[in-house]
Amino acid sequence: MSAAAASSALAERARELDRADPLAALRAEFIAADDVVSYLDGNSLGRPLRATRERLADFVTHVWGGRLIRGWDERWMDAPTEVGDQLARLTLGAARGQTVIGDCTSVLLYKLMRAGVGAQPERRVLVMDSGNFPTDRFIAQSVAAECGLTLRTIDPAPLAAVSIEDVAGALDEQVALLVLSHVDYRSAEIARLAEITALVHAAGALVLWDLSHSAGVVPVGLDAAGADLAVGCTYKYLNGGPGSPAFLYVAAGLQDRLGQPITGWMGAADPFAMGPGYAPASGVRRFLSGTPPILGMLALRDMLALIERAGLDRIRGKSVALTEFAIECSDALLAPLGVELASPREATVRGGHVMLEHDAFRELTPVLWARGVIPDFRPPRGLRIGLSPLSTSFAELETGIAVVAELLARRTAPARRAAQP
Amino acid sequence: MSAAAASSALAERARELDRADPLAALRAEFIAADDVVSYLDGNSLGRPLRATRERLADFVTHVWGGRLIRGWDERWMDAPTEVGDQLARLTLGAARGQTVIGDCTSVLLYKLMRAGVGAQPERRVLVMDSGNFPTDRFIAQSVAAECGLTLRTIDPAPLAAVSIEDVAGALDEQVALLVLSHVDYRSAEIARLAEITALVHAAGALVLWDLSHSAGVVPVGLDAAGADLAVGCTYKYLNGGPGSPAFLYVAAGLQDRLGQPITGWMGAADPFAMGPGYAPASGVRRFLSGTPPILGMLALRDMLALIERAGLDRIRGKSVALTEFAIECSDALLAPLGVELASPREATVRGGHVMLEHDAFRELTPVLWARGVIPDFRPPRGLRIGLSPLSTSFAELETGIAVVAELLARRTAPARRAAQP
Repeated sequence: MSAAAASSALAERARELDRADPLAALRAEFIAADDVVSYLDGNSLGRPLRATRERLADFVTHVWGGRLIRGWDERWMDAPTEVGDQLARLTLGAARGQTVIGDCTSVLLYKLMRAGVGAQPERRVLVMDSGNFPTDRFIAQSVAAECGLTLRTIDPAPLAAVSIEDVAGALDEQVALLVLSHVDYRSAEIARLAEITALVHAAGALVLWDLSHSAGVVPVGLDAAGADLAVGCTYKYLNGGPGSPAFLYVAAGLQDRLGQPITGWMGAADPFAMGPGYAPASGVRRFLSGTPPILGMLALRDMLALIERAGLDRIRGKSVALTEFAIECSDALLAPLGVELASPREATVRGGHVMLEHDAFRELTPVLWARGVIPDFRPPRGLRIGLSPLSTSFAELETGIAVVAELLARRTAPARRAAQP
Repeated sequence: MSAAAASSALAERARELDRADPLAALRAEFIAADDVVSYLDGNSLGRPLRATRERLADFVTHVWGGRLIRGWDERWMDAPTEVGDQLARLTLGAARGQTVIGDCTSVLLYKLMRAGVGAQPERRVLVMDSGNFPTDRFIAQSVAAECGLTLRTIDPAPLAAVSIEDVAGALDEQVALLVLSHVDYRSAEIARLAEITALVHAAGALVLWDLSHSAGVVPVGLDAAGADLAVGCTYKYLNGGPGSPAFLYVAAGLQDRLGQPITGWMGAADPFAMGPGYAPASGVRRFLSGTPPILGMLALRDMLALIERAGLDRIRGKSVALTEFAIECSDALLAPLGVELASPREATVRGGHVMLEHDAFRELTPVLWARGVIPDFRPPRGLRIGLSPLSTSFAELETGIAVVAELLARRTAPARRAAQP
């Protein structure tokens, strides 16, 4: 089949998939960008909901402007746990009282790493994964250095999530804490969170999971796995907006054993007592520090409401269908041009995005953007196709891949002919 | 003069002051709350600007929704320093490249305390002020404990800012860092920032100023004072909204000597290099950690634009006039009922609010709120009258004080008669 015929067949299939998609109608809830024909980076920054525009305007006029300082007494003090509980219930598989919103992911990683290693001062090793997201690794390095711990590094296969064997090889009686990602930010491979957690517990250690690429798209099941600690950002599949505040999870049974170093007033037992010394709140509030970012949580509330309507299982279902179709399109249109798939073919271990690799992608990305096709470039040669399920159609995905194929064919055609005389 | 006559004379004077106020027209830029007759807590939470409502709606539709992930390349990466520089120029007396927006005040206090004590590891004393705001003290206690430092406490006179003598008495060759507030959050007394900074430097130490109650209302003059480090919140006189992100300042000459512990990717020399190790950015960006709170900075931009139009000197002029008039009203209407002034009478050492004290204020505050008069209660017996200059009229202030007087007279009248038979 010619490339044109293949593209046409895939476009027809995309239309069928969109017609059969039970969540298709929800796309209309998002604000569309005029010049974007294919948004393939919803896992870097989710699109805003129309409801968010209204909510922000209403908030400014009637809540911030109308209630003024009374808002703190009336509703805002509880917002970090209220929104945290909702996020936990809808996306993390976690019961109430274990999740709060606040600060950025980096700050929360720092707090929970310090909390985790501080809980077991006799254990002198912190374990990280060399494939983890930079901020996780950088902070693990700093925490190990400042606490005088040995930093032990797991080196998984290139672009792979940590495996059970990787973790087993890193554990011994000196390990206090492991810092791992649930879904790999490059390949989207899903780590075996429950099995790894059990293995870590058997060795007497704790594990801190970064859920930035899972929350809102891949069911996590923290409570069922007996997880200890987790963090994640809210601007990807949770559509909180650029730089929206992050969340943390601390298992109920651990909370009162753990302390964190940034002992701001909002983590104190009585924030308004204004007393001489800090006594931590009981429960998960002790992991708060400063004044909660009320405005920054508003968009997240809208997306959580939409996730509740859609249901996380159906969202995961569409996510799998989208990544399957992305691979199908890539196999048909891009593989013949030398593009390699760097994500798992097996859907059960693949998260919400697909990584493709080619040496030309660095150069191609700005050209794609100029054409209104917006994936993310990941050095050294990755094109990351992020597929936020509720805002992405199959047709939009096919359109985007077809433009990648067109540009790549135009660019590589002479070189391929030269190599195959 | 009877209370009624005094109140009537003050109401007339308030009208005159409003007529003569060159900034009076700017009040119309703020959103009014229907049920509020007197908002006297602009130093806890500033009112929103009408422009902010429009800006947020526009941002959601056209910037976040329209530019999507491209926003990071186009404008957002520079927002922390761009808004920081503007805030520094308009309110802090600080040149470019020393101020960034991000995180909450508590997190920034932690980062800069660690940076400050880390810069002089041979000095083993951290100094704090027992009258400082709780979060400052709590974090100083934690940093001292975790770094194995001695915490030395300055005890100023009740409700007073730290004096030069207080500071002189706490300094010796072991002091690494002092943590002080510029404007006292209770009495509004202004500490002598420039003189204290010079004294601290003469002893070879650094000083970290909390500017939460100065920024936007009291000129600070950080560069002229040769200041080292500062932080402050943006939801008071900078009208950033509930829980808006804070700012930090690090003097240019110190930046490359200082490190901070929360080494997130946004503080790295190249945030997108995704390399194995963290190398700090040069300059003030190294004090960033996570993804900048873009949405959270928008309201602040509007208020900075308004401060630029008004001019900080004129704002300070109106602030002084408002606090003078608050004291005049209190002297006339409240002092006869047993209310005491807990703020300085001397305007040059008084910030933007006025603290009044009476045993009945705890009980009275909810009644005042129900009447649409909204000051802040500060335990054990303080009523804090916060006077955000651009959004507060003299008439509104007089109305509020008159209601306090009315309620207090009704409540205390029998007791006073009983005591003076």
